Amino acid sequence: MRLLYHLWLSPQSRKIRLILQEKNLDFSMQIEKVWERRAEFVALNPACEVPVLIEPDGLVLAEAGAIAEYLDETYREKLLLGLNPADRAEARRLVAWFDAKMNREVTEPLVTEKFMKRVLGVGVPDSAVIRAAKSNLKYHLDYIGYLTERYRGWLAGEEA
Amino acid sequence: MRLLYHLWLSPQSRKIRLILQEKNLDFSMQIEKVWERRAEFVALNPACEVPVLIEPDGLVLAEAGAIAEYLDETYREKLLLGLNPADRAEARRLVAWFDAKMNREVTEPLVTEKFMKRVLGVGVPDSAVIRAAKSNLKYHLDYIGYLTERYRGWLAGEEA
Repeated sequence: MRLLYHLWLSPQSRKIRLILQEKNLDFSMQIEKVWERRAEFVALNPACEVPVLIEPDGLVLAEAGAIAEYLDETYREKLLLGLNPADRAEARRLVAWFDAKMNREVTEPLVTEKFMKRVLGVGVPDSAVIRAAKSNLKYHLDYIGYLTERYRGWLAGEEA
Repeated sequence: MRLLYHLWLSPQSRKIRLILQEKNLDFSMQIEKVWERRAEFVALNPACEVPVLIEPDGLVLAEAGAIAEYLDETYREKLLLGLNPADRAEARRLVAWFDAKMNREVTEPLVTEKFMKRVLGVGVPDSAVIRAAKSNLKYHLDYIGYLTERYRGWLAGEEA
């Protein structure tokens, strides 16, 4: 059975859960509290980050981008990136936009302030940070709106 | 002519300069001071980050990962990622290691403290941050050492 080490609030884990479901691949899940730095997990991924995916043949895959590309290269029935290199570049640009930029400006500050500080017991939520992240969210939603209008309903590319 | 918008101290720009040279692709370069948020550049890349590459046919490519994958998919004479999906996943995991983890723990703090603060005129270098980044560097160099020994001289995979 395919096994995904993940966290529910990790956007990188969510990306892999979605890809596995889009491709109709069976998998089980195990929550990995990465902040505990469990030795067996560090041995799977020395960066000690989720997601990590163990394929049915035992192959260990770490790092969400590498896992996503592997799944799209290996399970070809429902391609997520398209075939044309220019379309693929645009899709990858947007994936990086949400993985890096939106995560840095919106998701990570919100998860840190409203959840991780409590879990780790390191202080109280900073309302200024939460306000800034919520304000940033508006610009990202506007950008998503612009992209969907430009491309007739899809974020990247003309066709599904 | 191919045109690369870049910054000399940006690791993401350096990655694309190296790939273009590895593949023997002619290109000219233009320094883009992204902190000035030049309108014409924001129109090319709304994230306002380098690198941005304009291909000879006018195609605009933004975001280092997307550019790197495009170049390897389009110019196939000297493949950088290999052909086997598992090998490609390992190479991409390590690319992400250096692009994200080592950048966050070493490169970005050093460039920020020792260079950007002066360029932008926002305070003096924080010696505690510089010491932490230099200390982190040791662990990354150890990891590179481990990888090269494991794989007979290459960071990812058995063969060049």
